[in-house]
Amino acid sequence: MTDPDRLALNTATTKQWTLQQAIDGAVHAGIRGLGVWRDRVAEVGAVRAGRMLTEAGLTVTSLCRGGFLTAADAGGIGDCLADNRSAIEEAAAVGTSELVLVVGGLPPGDRDLAGARLRVADRIADLVPFAATHGVRLVLEPLHPMYCADRAVLSTVAQALDLADPFPAETVGIVIDTFHVWWDPQLPGQIERAAAAGRLALYQVNDFLLPIAADALLSRGMMGDGCIDLADISTRVTAAGYTGPVEVEIFNADIWQQDGAEVVRTVIDRYRRLVLPFLGGS
Amino acid sequence: MTDPDRLALNTATTKQWTLQQAIDGAVHAGIRGLGVWRDRVAEVGAVRAGRMLTEAGLTVTSLCRGGFLTAADAGGIGDCLADNRSAIEEAAAVGTSELVLVVGGLPPGDRDLAGARLRVADRIADLVPFAATHGVRLVLEPLHPMYCADRAVLSTVAQALDLADPFPAETVGIVIDTFHVWWDPQLPGQIERAAAAGRLALYQVNDFLLPIAADALLSRGMMGDGCIDLADISTRVTAAGYTGPVEVEIFNADIWQQDGAEVVRTVIDRYRRLVLPFLGGS
Repeated sequence: MTDPDRLALNTATTKQWTLQQAIDGAVHAGIRGLGVWRDRVAEVGAVRAGRMLTEAGLTVTSLCRGGFLTAADAGGIGDCLADNRSAIEEAAAVGTSELVLVVGGLPPGDRDLAGARLRVADRIADLVPFAATHGVRLVLEPLHPMYCADRAVLSTVAQALDLADPFPAETVGIVIDTFHVWWDPQLPGQIERAAAAGRLALYQVNDFLLPIAADALLSRGMMGDGCIDLADISTRVTAAGYTGPVEVEIFNADIWQQDGAEVVRTVIDRYRRLVLPFLGGS
Repeated sequence: MTDPDRLALNTATTKQWTLQQAIDGAVHAGIRGLGVWRDRVAEVGAVRAGRMLTEAGLTVTSLCRGGFLTAADAGGIGDCLADNRSAIEEAAAVGTSELVLVVGGLPPGDRDLAGARLRVADRIADLVPFAATHGVRLVLEPLHPMYCADRAVLSTVAQALDLADPFPAETVGIVIDTFHVWWDPQLPGQIERAAAAGRLALYQVNDFLLPIAADALLSRGMMGDGCIDLADISTRVTAAGYTGPVEVEIFNADIWQQDGAEVVRTVIDRYRRLVLPFLGGS
């Protein structure tokens, strides 16, 4: 019951660690899954990264991230498709079926939000066949609306599921990241919708801190340090039928200053107390 | 066509001005409406403020603000009701039917978001009869989700309209503030819903700036300085049938450092170029 079977460490949480250190740290702590960012994969190349992860006995729960799909000009669209095809190949090479996509914000000087959102839909359609042939699912990540202008015009779970609807569930899924969606009045119903559609690809936990950090991307906190009701959301995710990994992904400058092993100990402790009891089962 | 008939200045935009200065500044600039905050009203008292505004020939487009309805303890609930009854009386005294409510965030240490939202509904029900007898409408303001924890658990127009539904349209309305709702994928449909229900009490314009200010409340910018498509939203508000005031409400430390008359000139210029052409009519 307290064995962290489903707990996965995302390498963003221990940004102070190389891929090798993250692998060693996870294994040492008894964590069985690792969500990896492309900067860590780039240290050794995707094929070697995949071999290292496999040999360590770790499940790769996700590759983070592809996306930035909102370019309006032909050159930008071409670059975006090329980069995302690389990310799809990397996901397959490191051994995960789940490629998280942060869809991108408004192009510089552009205020046409509806247009940017339509282009996201177009780029997903462009990428799905390539992803499918690689056995990789495009996992859409709704980001907190505070990032709508510069990071992701995809702001809610409902919107992500609307984007996913035209495609088979094994090709387009969504991730629930508590930091991004905890505020959403529609969250309970949309968690059910995502799970019922077979699209709930990943559950990421962390917390929402105030005040918002000077670099707003770094406002995420350790579970229990903020205002998110992790018990409630975890219970709902579980009740909806989700049995997959629970990734801890935290962007936080203070946490990145700490010893990585200490961070992982805190992650496990908080997970056991604040998340695991609400995941059901044994 | 370029006469700013519907333009109203909100006193928060010229926080450097007293009520008297704001009245004089608006009249001098040819602005016919003023949205007033309670701190400005408190300078002279509500009855005298109402007389000053009437004598200046200004329409009071709103009183900002009541709210902070999320207290869970009997003492906090009693204080909140007393304060909001005072705000209702003030609104009537200064001569406006529209009292904007910022509903409040999570109580300190509380993570029960659903519970806080239910209490908001309960407090609205408590206040509606008192407001109705004073001819005052409670105008619910959805705030950007970045303020969900500390300022307003009311995050979307849909949620505001759901809260308003049980009450007559003349007692509970909503305000569309572009800063707070521009990111919402449901905005177009919810503007139509609000107008069709007779609940679109006020339209406030401003802009969304990045990076988010150190004091996140002050991230609002002058129309045209940020990423909001004011043409699109203004067109939708107009198409939905809204013919009421267009208030400029901006919280911005830089703007508060400027000469108030210069701020008002910029407000009028930006309004004429970026908002008025999309309000229809002549």
